[in-house]
Amino acid sequence: MPTFNTGLPSVRQIQAFIKDKKNVQVGLITSQSTEGQILWQDENCICILEEGREKTLIWLSAIAYIKAA
Amino acid sequence: MPTFNTGLPSVRQIQAFIKDKKNVQVGLITSQSTEGQILWQDENCICILEEGREKTLIWLSAIAYIKAA
Amino acid sequence: MPTFNTGLPSVRQIQAFIKDKKNVQVGLITSQSTEGQILWQDENCICILEEGREKTLIWLSAIAYIKAA
Amino acid sequence: MPTFNTGLPSVRQIQAFIKDKKNVQVGLITSQSTEGQILWQDENCICILEEGREKTLIWLSAIAYIKAA
Amino acid sequence: MPTFNTGLPSVRQIQAFIKDKKNVQVGLITSQSTEGQILWQDENCICILEEGREKTLIWLSAIAYIKAA
Amino acid sequence: MPTFNTGLPSVRQIQAFIKDKKNVQVGLITSQSTEGQILWQDENCICILEEGREKTLIWLSAIAYIKAA
Repeated sequence: MPTFNTGLPSVRQIQAFIKDKKNVQVGLITSQSTEGQILWQDENCICILEEGREKTLIWLSAIAYIKAA
Repeated sequence: MPTFNTGLPSVRQIQAFIKDKKNVQVGLITSQSTEGQILWQDENCICILEEGREKTLIWLSAIAYIKAA
Repeated sequence: MPTFNTGLPSVRQIQAFIKDKKNVQVGLITSQSTEGQILWQDENCICILEEGREKTLIWLSAIAYIKAA
Repeated sequence: MPTFNTGLPSVRQIQAFIKDKKNVQVGLITSQSTEGQILWQDENCICILEEGREKTLIWLSAIAYIKAA
Repeated sequence: MPTFNTGLPSVRQIQAFIKDKKNVQVGLITSQSTEGQILWQDENCICILEEGREKTLIWLSAIAYIKAA
Repeated sequence: MPTFNTGLPSVRQIQAFIKDKKNVQVGLITSQSTEGQILWQDENCICILEEGREKTLIWLSAIAYIKAA
């Protein structure tokens, strides 16, 4: 499992996406991708708000990449 | 393996889906998805009740996302 | 790796399938699935008896879901 | 990573395949499968002798199932 | 999770790609690949700058290979 | 993550491929495969020299099999 250490650049980069309410694209290891705003992150998941939907939990183990949309 | 710590937002979010008997969509890393009510969660699996079926054990390591259906 | 703790609901649910000699469907992360009776489980695998075949070892890391067939 | 504990039924089952020089089918999480005799196992891999070929190392993390061919 | 130990050849090789501002091809376990310059690495991710885009976080668990483009 | 213990048969087998400058086929969990000479291995990756190319880092977690080409 990814390490959840708030000192890590990757954890801080996601924290910046959250703080800036940045719209991001999340690519999954299924080759599917989705867009939305990351609400929070923890050591298992990120929670995103996709357009006009409720919260979606995405498992870190299923994420391939995250980029600004 | 995901960390099963009931203090984590992701574990609490699933607990809320369970308490509210929310119908959820579970996306798998196979690109398949299924719908149902989550009955319980532990550090390996969630157990869901799909419509008109018995219990289904889904491994956390195979889950890509969970969202309210 | 999944935690093999016999107190866990997921481990107990598989134990119940074994005790009841329940025919189950095992979905793999390859999107393939197979059916049979689970003979035993340990922290790496389950062993199932598919119809008219010998034992098959299935790695827990490759399992997406298990449901009663 | 799977636990390599020779007391485990799954490790013992593979040991039996090795001792009996059993021809087995190894299914991978790529949906490909291959056949041959398992020469040895360790905590990362199995080594098999496919028909008319040299040794092939197969990572346990890539194995979906093993059954007698 | 991969071990993040700066003494490891693999971590040092990525550090060399970063220092030399090498354009690299990153192959993902989805069979997709992308190109760009690696900005930094940590124990969960690499961060790359794809042509004309913002930063992209790529999870190490989703990487198949990295080669000079 | 695979265990990097030089006493393991799998680590020793890769060491033999390196020492003998053996041309090997590396199968990935994407179903892609590549050929080349393994230059070194560590607990995260192998580094191979594909024909007429520079070094390629391949993550152990993405490897399905390695066989002599």
